[in-house]
Amino acid sequence: MTTAGPGRPRLTKPRRPGPTAQAEILDAAAELFTTKGFASTSTRQIAEVVGMRQASLYHHFATKDDILAALLRKTVSAPLELATRLTERTEPAAVRLSALILFDSGQLVSGRWNLGALYLLPELRTERFAHFRRERQLLRERYSTLARAVLTQLGSSETACAGLPFRIVETVINDRSDGEGGEPVDLGPEAPQLLADAGLRVLGWTDVESLRSPAGMLLDDVAAEA
Amino acid sequence: MTTAGPGRPRLTKPRRPGPTAQAEILDAAAELFTTKGFASTSTRQIAEVVGMRQASLYHHFATKDDILAALLRKTVSAPLELATRLTERTEPAAVRLSALILFDSGQLVSGRWNLGALYLLPELRTERFAHFRRERQLLRERYSTLARAVLTQLGSSETACAGLPFRIVETVINDRSDGEGGEPVDLGPEAPQLLADAGLRVLGWTDVESLRSPAGMLLDDVAAEA
Repeated sequence: MTTAGPGRPRLTKPRRPGPTAQAEILDAAAELFTTKGFASTSTRQIAEVVGMRQASLYHHFATKDDILAALLRKTVSAPLELATRLTERTEPAAVRLSALILFDSGQLVSGRWNLGALYLLPELRTERFAHFRRERQLLRERYSTLARAVLTQLGSSETACAGLPFRIVETVINDRSDGEGGEPVDLGPEAPQLLADAGLRVLGWTDVESLRSPAGMLLDDVAAEA
Repeated sequence: MTTAGPGRPRLTKPRRPGPTAQAEILDAAAELFTTKGFASTSTRQIAEVVGMRQASLYHHFATKDDILAALLRKTVSAPLELATRLTERTEPAAVRLSALILFDSGQLVSGRWNLGALYLLPELRTERFAHFRRERQLLRERYSTLARAVLTQLGSSETACAGLPFRIVETVINDRSDGEGGEPVDLGPEAPQLLADAGLRVLGWTDVESLRSPAGMLLDDVAAEA
């Protein structure tokens, strides 16, 4: 069988999940980066795990940094797009923030590999990853803007906590890292709702139950629009 | 001048902070591990940065893993000791949990290097670090026990959130990692109090102000005892 995408037809049966050779490479790299470490993984090893020649891998990604950049982009682009759409909505800020946390923590908890663990790599501080860092900072600002709107609605003058909801979503990463094979330890399958509740509670919002249904509906609505 | 500890007298003036050659090695390794990466750092480079011969470094630490283990132990031993002392205290669970968060996040935010970023290293999953992982799991359980006691006091049946206060303390690590040179981005100098408030709020405790003074007094009291 052959795979879709720009590469040459594969001589062997795909060993990794994914509709294209590129997706297979990303899956293999994600496993190696999160279980062996980024610095300890070579493009040769990635090619081996995928079952392709190193030369074929270079056809899709020129460097190991390019593979890492593609993996990181996947984790931030969808929540950033949602956050941008949410700025145009008229629902209360608390509902919009809940929806964003539900979606973002949902993808971090359900991804096959715990890619968020790569956020702490010192390698990301180089110019090569400046674009990713800017996107992630933009996402952090979107969270913060929504959080401040919630605080205003609550009549709260404590704005220092506005950075917490974004950080609370990231706790999924540490929780998965402590588990066997990237399974969550403490948070369990209800993690997204738990974190949406927590993200609002840290701002001083107490009636989190009332947000659950409208936040879910808002997410469905925005997804249908996309 | 000579330094304390078991090593040979140093021929050069210390380049790194710390009362002993061992402390200097740990400081240099902490910088390299958190800014260049663990896998990308060699013991030769650590020795160079300290300004000692590699052979002298081996006198203090036989392997790079031993250096990492010593650094990690420092981050968990003090909060674990405090958590153990707190189990014997009679103050309300909410006050004890606040005190633990204040102390633990305080040390994570004020450490010269962002050592918590090393928690996500895949290398920590090996047998060499089993002791560290057990200690950290014990600390996580102490947090969880206090959190469940708070939930019981609140009459809450939602126990899934009992794992959150521990995770909220760890948000300091991601926040520092996103800053320049390990400075916090969002949390600011009031991080410990902010996180103590947040850790209680996620459990549904609303009057966090009332805990601030007793939690601070409890910390002082336990510190005086030690």
